[in-house]
Amino acid sequence: MNGELSVGIAGLGTVGAGVVRLLQENAAIIAARAGRPVRVVAVSARDRTRDRGVSLEGIRWVEDPLVLATDPAVDVVVELIGGASGAARDLVEAALAAGKPVVTANKALIAQAGGDLAGLIRGGPGIRFEAAVAGGIPVIKALREGLGANRIASVSGIFNGTCNYMLTRMRDEKMEFADVLAEAQALGYAEADPSADIDGVDTAHKLAILAAIAFGRQVDFGAVHVEGIRRISAVDIAFADELGYRIKLLGIARASEAGIETRVHPAMVPENSALAKVDGVNNAVVISGEPVGDIVIQGRGAGAGPTASAVVADLIDLARGRQTPMLGMAPDALRSEASVPMAAHRGAYCLRLMVLDQPGVIADVTAVLRDHGISLETMLQRGRSPGDVVPVVIITHETDEAAMAAALVQIAALPAVQEPPALIRIEQA
Amino acid sequence: MNGELSVGIAGLGTVGAGVVRLLQENAAIIAARAGRPVRVVAVSARDRTRDRGVSLEGIRWVEDPLVLATDPAVDVVVELIGGASGAARDLVEAALAAGKPVVTANKALIAQAGGDLAGLIRGGPGIRFEAAVAGGIPVIKALREGLGANRIASVSGIFNGTCNYMLTRMRDEKMEFADVLAEAQALGYAEADPSADIDGVDTAHKLAILAAIAFGRQVDFGAVHVEGIRRISAVDIAFADELGYRIKLLGIARASEAGIETRVHPAMVPENSALAKVDGVNNAVVISGEPVGDIVIQGRGAGAGPTASAVVADLIDLARGRQTPMLGMAPDALRSEASVPMAAHRGAYCLRLMVLDQPGVIADVTAVLRDHGISLETMLQRGRSPGDVVPVVIITHETDEAAMAAALVQIAALPAVQEPPALIRIEQA
Repeated sequence: MNGELSVGIAGLGTVGAGVVRLLQENAAIIAARAGRPVRVVAVSARDRTRDRGVSLEGIRWVEDPLVLATDPAVDVVVELIGGASGAARDLVEAALAAGKPVVTANKALIAQAGGDLAGLIRGGPGIRFEAAVAGGIPVIKALREGLGANRIASVSGIFNGTCNYMLTRMRDEKMEFADVLAEAQALGYAEADPSADIDGVDTAHKLAILAAIAFGRQVDFGAVHVEGIRRISAVDIAFADELGYRIKLLGIARASEAGIETRVHPAMVPENSALAKVDGVNNAVVISGEPVGDIVIQGRGAGAGPTASAVVADLIDLARGRQTPMLGMAPDALRSEASVPMAAHRGAYCLRLMVLDQPGVIADVTAVLRDHGISLETMLQRGRSPGDVVPVVIITHETDEAAMAAALVQIAALPAVQEPPALIRIEQA
Repeated sequence: MNGELSVGIAGLGTVGAGVVRLLQENAAIIAARAGRPVRVVAVSARDRTRDRGVSLEGIRWVEDPLVLATDPAVDVVVELIGGASGAARDLVEAALAAGKPVVTANKALIAQAGGDLAGLIRGGPGIRFEAAVAGGIPVIKALREGLGANRIASVSGIFNGTCNYMLTRMRDEKMEFADVLAEAQALGYAEADPSADIDGVDTAHKLAILAAIAFGRQVDFGAVHVEGIRRISAVDIAFADELGYRIKLLGIARASEAGIETRVHPAMVPENSALAKVDGVNNAVVISGEPVGDIVIQGRGAGAGPTASAVVADLIDLARGRQTPMLGMAPDALRSEASVPMAAHRGAYCLRLMVLDQPGVIADVTAVLRDHGISLETMLQRGRSPGDVVPVVIITHETDEAAMAAALVQIAALPAVQEPPALIRIEQA
């Protein structure tokens, strides 16, 4: 354990280059905390000629990343290729099969194939993935170790900086979704194909991982209910403001008597709550445990620096020989608790309709809600413009998701309702 | 490593009883995360007859806690007696000398004797103290491990729930310090002798520990500049509000080219900053590192539950064999960076004076400031009452602490100044 820890990195995008840079720039601090030097000895990426703003001098270039899995000169494989299948998965499987530890930032891979990968680990450190969730925030370590004595009641938070940036801009500048998206793409905050972010899939990957660790069960990505932010409009944000809420894309995992509920959707949170105050590209996690109470951790959730910080933290643990099972407990200690379907959810809802401003519309809508046993808390209609289309916002008391979904179908079919209704859940988080 | 981890607990106050209860109530979760059962086999406390609301059945009662240090049936000693000397220190020294790991919540002991204790550790896990700082917030683990790759620029925060509760009450209810203190004592939030909390000593203990870990050097409690909150009055809080600030008792450790600055004092922080929003008995830590950026962790900083959560997290690490040097790096890797004296501090200041409302007073005060090269940003005098004593608040631009201290002596001596001036530093934190 006194020699250096030699690292092979596959993938030299923003994060990969950030890891190489961090291991060079903070080499002395990292060696002190790791108990020995941590050094990149080999890298593999698609384009050898690209300037990544970091020195690769003295580092071996490997054309086929798979070679790293069995290279005796490589102690740890760092997988930063990305994607739940293909080269990334092949490399991770080969390394684990060869008994070599893996560090990855690949949330899609862990969320979608975590169970299969766990089956490949034959003792030893296996696979580590602090960087897969919430970037620089050490939330995996907090859940698996720092709060390990707690019975976790819920883990929730803002896990996608792109969406949070967009929602913050929409509110600050009173901009529409499409305009903010175009702006975010121009600034490089959103990808050309923004679907993984704005449709909630990225948040769902992270939530599935956190839920598995929090509740001590296998990763169950398929059970996560996923909605994104495409349907959020400036008028929703303005109404939320008026009612004392902020709109955030949340991932929420909660234990109930029926099992584990995992869901990703836009939510209205009270403006004084911890999550309401998290703006811009920041991420935040709220962990609710017994007996610790609520722990809130906030920080930058993406970018080269924060992600590299998490990758290297995993390398330091490996260098020190600190081992933790993949999900915090041995596979045979994991529970097989049921996932609760979204239809069984109970909560309060905010319904925003675009309706023709004519007599009787509100009566029709509220009759549908009454027929489904849904009681109203607030109804807002701002501006009068007879014959035009105007927004109407309705807040319900706590009710069943199934009832709300059924009511929504009928409301959408009312002649005066001119657009598909927007449904935003209300969370006290 | 497959047998149980047997624990001997010395001290059965609120926290000790909380640890016994937690190890019983969450036994299955803890065993799964620890990889084996963690069980209390022996306890020692002063009064055997007291009802602590927890079952001690099957647990051996030991009259002399020192016996735990050498008891072969005890794998780990948990020291919850408290105090930097006496029985607590004797026990910890004896256990370390016997090669037995120690878990403690004793911030005074680590802050004041940490260096000596480190010298007693002969390999092995040594002493662990997650519970010593910020209760349930796993900040020691975050600094030593989760953010281990970072060059830390600063660690600051609210580390004393009693003071934060009192300052929150003073603001919410417009109460004076003495009244809030009496109320906090009646509620059990403040002790009969509240000095350790309200004079900043408790915060300084925690800050000294965090600074040592953040900057990789020995604990230097003596170097911490310490001021408490006794001098804060309702009028200070009202003026701070008007100027867009909150007053918090902060601990701040910051690296500069001159060395490490560590200070505890009331500070005005902008109302939109993360620390301004931490109210009541909560604690919060802001860690600023390169490349991670700012990480903010918030949670309950005291009480049986949160503190027991931290103690048992340390026990889980011991059960798993996860080892970390006391300050995150081996003793010979620690740096010997100088502590910067408070006189060398630079910052902005808020000065609140109680002056006779008569012509020329402000001119006299501002002349003193000018003579010391201190420039003014804001001056507020609310209410006119010729001949009476009225508050005057002055905000300075950034200046030297030494200049400010010298000016303060002269200002205090002005005939129109009727009370010792209150000085509150302004932090952008």
